[in-house]
Amino acid sequence: MAKEKLTIVKIGGDIVDNDVLLASFFQHIEEVNGPKIIVHGGGNRASALQKELGIEPKKIDGRRVTDAATLEVVTMVYAGLLNKKLVSKLQALGDNAIGLSGADGDVIRAHKRIVKTVDYGFAGDIDQVNVRFIHDLLLTKKTPVFSPITHDGKGQLLNTNADTLAARIASAMSLKYDTELFYCFTKSGVLRDVNDDNSVVEDINVHNYLQLKQEGVITDGMIPKLDTAFEALTGGVSQVHLGLVDILSNTTLKHTTLCL
Amino acid sequence: MAKEKLTIVKIGGDIVDNDVLLASFFQHIEEVNGPKIIVHGGGNRASALQKELGIEPKKIDGRRVTDAATLEVVTMVYAGLLNKKLVSKLQALGDNAIGLSGADGDVIRAHKRIVKTVDYGFAGDIDQVNVRFIHDLLLTKKTPVFSPITHDGKGQLLNTNADTLAARIASAMSLKYDTELFYCFTKSGVLRDVNDDNSVVEDINVHNYLQLKQEGVITDGMIPKLDTAFEALTGGVSQVHLGLVDILSNTTLKHTTLCL
Repeated sequence: MAKEKLTIVKIGGDIVDNDVLLASFFQHIEEVNGPKIIVHGGGNRASALQKELGIEPKKIDGRRVTDAATLEVVTMVYAGLLNKKLVSKLQALGDNAIGLSGADGDVIRAHKRIVKTVDYGFAGDIDQVNVRFIHDLLLTKKTPVFSPITHDGKGQLLNTNADTLAARIASAMSLKYDTELFYCFTKSGVLRDVNDDNSVVEDINVHNYLQLKQEGVITDGMIPKLDTAFEALTGGVSQVHLGLVDILSNTTLKHTTLCL
Repeated sequence: MAKEKLTIVKIGGDIVDNDVLLASFFQHIEEVNGPKIIVHGGGNRASALQKELGIEPKKIDGRRVTDAATLEVVTMVYAGLLNKKLVSKLQALGDNAIGLSGADGDVIRAHKRIVKTVDYGFAGDIDQVNVRFIHDLLLTKKTPVFSPITHDGKGQLLNTNADTLAARIASAMSLKYDTELFYCFTKSGVLRDVNDDNSVVEDINVHNYLQLKQEGVITDGMIPKLDTAFEALTGGVSQVHLGLVDILSNTTLKHTTLCL
């Protein structure tokens, strides 16, 4: 028997923070048929609150360093403010959303990142996705909405990269579902020219990915995102798309599709 | 067939904020047999964050006035920071906790308090408890942990009194369970002399309650708490206890028990 389709959507902080883009997201997500899972980031809002509280945001290679004070801020902003805002809006649209951190129902277990050259503090690397619990929620017609806060099972909350979280959830759920993963952000996809939204690289595979990196077309923050997306494909995810929220309701729109 | 016992525990912000009292709470809650539900407040921490952000906390008759900025703060602190901290610690103790705001799974529906003489802003008065969803969680051995943030089903989050939330959940669950409700705080119960922990009024019923109010023994914030607790009894709750967290594992310890 063919597996049921499951849509996993990751929306970045740039969408969650912007009322116009968020409204557009809600419009398109409601056109997705079948079960779905939402994973959100929220970096800008957390950085703004840190500044208001006099905590200087620290990043190394584009990744946040999470000290104890920063962990409190991201737990408040991601698992509290943004997560509950998304859930309440989805409920208003008739979508029975349930907001989750990794600690809730022990749904995402992680460990504090091992210090090699860089100490990322309370950064969590994912060990385990509780497929059964997520499956039970989907069976009762709920839409899980994940904030990128996880836990180690020993009482410690951890800050986890939302792109990675979405990829790991999608891979894990591939055991039971035919999974399609969307990374939605404010660009139409991976662009050859970052200032030209028409310069979308429509298909990226493991071969031209290497070439695009060598040419300097794919740089900086896009590299870990695509590495993570490729890991999702090798992990059993059927399709990975990157682009605007509009592609949720229409995948024939120009965007980037990944394949191995 | 006799209904299964269900324990509902409300812990105030004074416990959630205090590492020693919180450790004691965890010790005693783990000795509770059978399914349980936890409801937490968190007022002090929210007020502290408000001050850090330059928002002046407003209260009328001991009840917080929730303007838009305050709603953001309580959503962050209650539904984010404190809720996830409690859940991760319970997970570490082997308790499969799941943190919930009222929006999650549409579990607590409320409406914005009608303005009569006082405008409490985004204060939520509870309309509906989703008994079926809570029951499903309990059947799968989960411990729901409620933050006092609710929603109106139209996309608006609301700030709800945690004492009332605990009472309404306990009353609603009485349909399916034999419910016992505990209000845990930093006193041994209702005290005749607020400075003497041995002056506990051990039994309060509707008759001596009136008298105790007339004598001025019960005043201020204790009145709405006890009114709410009596509503729980009339709503079908079997037993209501008020006192230290120690009573969770031993109800023979001196504390206040309510009866009609």
